[in-house]
Amino acid sequence: MGKLLIVGSMAFDAIETPFGKTGKILGGAATFIGLAATQFKLRSAIVSVVGEDFPKAYMDILKDRDIDLSGVEVVKGGKTFFWQGKYHNDLNSRDTLATELNTLADFNPIVPDGFADADVVMLGNLHPNIQMSVINQMEERPKLIILDTMNFWMNHTWDELMDVIGKIDVITINDEEARQMTKEYSLVKAAAKIQEMGPKYVVIKKGEHGALLFHENNIFFAPALPLEEVFDPTGAGDTFAGGFAGYLTMAGNISFESMKNAIIHGSNLASFCVERFGTERMVELKKHEVEARLMQFKELTQFNIELT
Amino acid sequence: MGKLLIVGSMAFDAIETPFGKTGKILGGAATFIGLAATQFKLRSAIVSVVGEDFPKAYMDILKDRDIDLSGVEVVKGGKTFFWQGKYHNDLNSRDTLATELNTLADFNPIVPDGFADADVVMLGNLHPNIQMSVINQMEERPKLIILDTMNFWMNHTWDELMDVIGKIDVITINDEEARQMTKEYSLVKAAAKIQEMGPKYVVIKKGEHGALLFHENNIFFAPALPLEEVFDPTGAGDTFAGGFAGYLTMAGNISFESMKNAIIHGSNLASFCVERFGTERMVELKKHEVEARLMQFKELTQFNIELT
Repeated sequence: MGKLLIVGSMAFDAIETPFGKTGKILGGAATFIGLAATQFKLRSAIVSVVGEDFPKAYMDILKDRDIDLSGVEVVKGGKTFFWQGKYHNDLNSRDTLATELNTLADFNPIVPDGFADADVVMLGNLHPNIQMSVINQMEERPKLIILDTMNFWMNHTWDELMDVIGKIDVITINDEEARQMTKEYSLVKAAAKIQEMGPKYVVIKKGEHGALLFHENNIFFAPALPLEEVFDPTGAGDTFAGGFAGYLTMAGNISFESMKNAIIHGSNLASFCVERFGTERMVELKKHEVEARLMQFKELTQFNIELT
Repeated sequence: MGKLLIVGSMAFDAIETPFGKTGKILGGAATFIGLAATQFKLRSAIVSVVGEDFPKAYMDILKDRDIDLSGVEVVKGGKTFFWQGKYHNDLNSRDTLATELNTLADFNPIVPDGFADADVVMLGNLHPNIQMSVINQMEERPKLIILDTMNFWMNHTWDELMDVIGKIDVITINDEEARQMTKEYSLVKAAAKIQEMGPKYVVIKKGEHGALLFHENNIFFAPALPLEEVFDPTGAGDTFAGGFAGYLTMAGNISFESMKNAIIHGSNLASFCVERFGTERMVELKKHEVEARLMQFKELTQFNIELT
C-alpha cells in the first residue's frame, strides 16, 4: 500500500459566510488534506504542530481514519494556530479578521518513523523553509512531491520559495498567484514559466471555475461541479490537493493520464467540502456519495463527437 | 439539408485592444453567426439591414459561403450600424466608445422566400420586438428557436424580452446577465428560474471560463480552450452561438446529447475567433484546423475513471 506524508497546519478556524457564523472549529491545511486523502486506500501520516488547547476529539477524527499522528507535535502550554475570516457575498473573496500563528511560529517539523520513505509527499501551504526541511528529511527521493503555496510566501519569502519549488514535481497554485509569480496574464504562458522553475506538473486552481493541469504541451481541465449553493469555501483548495495526492498515492503510477483522474477526484471531493462549514461535510462523507458524484462529473464533461 | 435562419446585426466595428487598433472593419452578430454556422453542411440565410455604405466585398464574404442574403435590406442613403469599443488589459471587460444604430434603428425584418420554413432560427442579440417579428413570420413552428440577448434589453425592454423568451427553446446568455435576470447568484438556480420563463435549454456563457448547458436536471460544461493569447474577444459569443446553431441544424435531431456536441463545436469555433481582430480568423479558417482543435478539446476534457 502506498504511503502519503502530509505536511501542513492543524488549526482552529472561525468562519463567517452569508449563511452563518461559527465559533472556533477544526481547520488547517493538513486536516483537510488528510480527510480527503483517506478516501483512498493508502497509509498516511501528518506532520504538524498544535497547542495543548487542541481537543482530543479533533485528533480522534483523524486517528479514526488511520492517519498516523506521531508526527504531530503537541506543544506544552502552547496555543494552536487560529484563523478567523469573513467571506463576501459572492463567496469568491474574503477578509482575514485574525491570524494567530501561535505554536506554528516556531514549528520544527519531524518526519515520523516509517514515513521517511513515503511514496508521495504533500507539502501543504506553509513557510517554504518548513516545506524544505521535510524534503531534506526524506531517506530517498519520493516518487512525487506536491507543493501548495500562496501569495503570502511570494511576497515575503521569494528566495526560499524558489529553492523549494526547484525540488518538487507538482505545484498547486491559484490563478491570481500563478499570474503574480510569473508576471504573465495568460495561464498557458504562466504555467510554462512555472515549469521552467522546476515542477514538471503545474495545477492552476480557479475556484468555482475549475482547475487546469499543465505538463509539457499537454493541458487537462476539470470544472468545479456547479452547485445550487456554496456554503463555505474554507478548505476547498486543501481538499482538492488531498484528493489529488491521495489518488496518486493509491494509483502508484505517475503519468499525465493518472494525474487527469487525480484532478477529477480532487475536484469531486472539493465539491462536498464547500457544502457545510469547515470539515463538517468531509467528516460524514460516504463512499456511495463520492461515487455518485463522480458519475455526475462524467455526465458534466464527457461527450462523443464524430468529425463531420 | 437543414435550413438555418439567422437574424442579427451586420455592422462596422472599430476595436482597440492592448495589441492594437482597427479602423472600421466587418462586424455584427449575424456576420459572426453566419461565418461559424457555415462550417457545417446546411442552407442558411441572414435577415439584417445595412446602409449603402456597406461594401460589396463584405457581402461577398458571406455570399461566398452560400449564405442567402436576400433578407438583408440595403437602405438607400442609409448608414450601417457602427460600434466602437476599447478592451481593458485583461480583455474581460471593455468600454463602448460609440454606438451609432443608423439603419438598425428602424429595422423591419423580412424573412426571405424559402426560409419561412427553416428548421432552426438563430435570433442574434437585437431588440426583442425584432426577434418576435421574425418568429411570427415563420410558416410553422421551427424545430428549434435559439435566442441570444444581453443586459441592455433587460434594462430597457423587459416585458418585450419576456414575451419572446416565452416562445423560444434555447437561450444563450452570459453569467452576469443570467444573475441579473433572475436575481440568483448560483448559476444552477438562475438556470432553473430561466427554464421556468420558457426556454427548455439554457446556455450560460462564461467567456474564458467556458459555457454551461442546463436542461431539466442535466448539466453539461465545456471549457474555453486555454490560449497563449486572446487577441480580440469581439464576436466570440456570436461565433459560439453560430457554431451551436449550425451544428444542430446539420445534426437534425434535438436532444441533450446533440446539444453537448453543439456546445463543444461552438466553443471550438470561438477559440479561433479571438485569435485575430474581428472576423479575420474566421474568414480564413480551414476544416483541418477546426478538426485538429476538436481533438485538443477532447484531450483537454476527456478522462477515464474507474470507481475504486
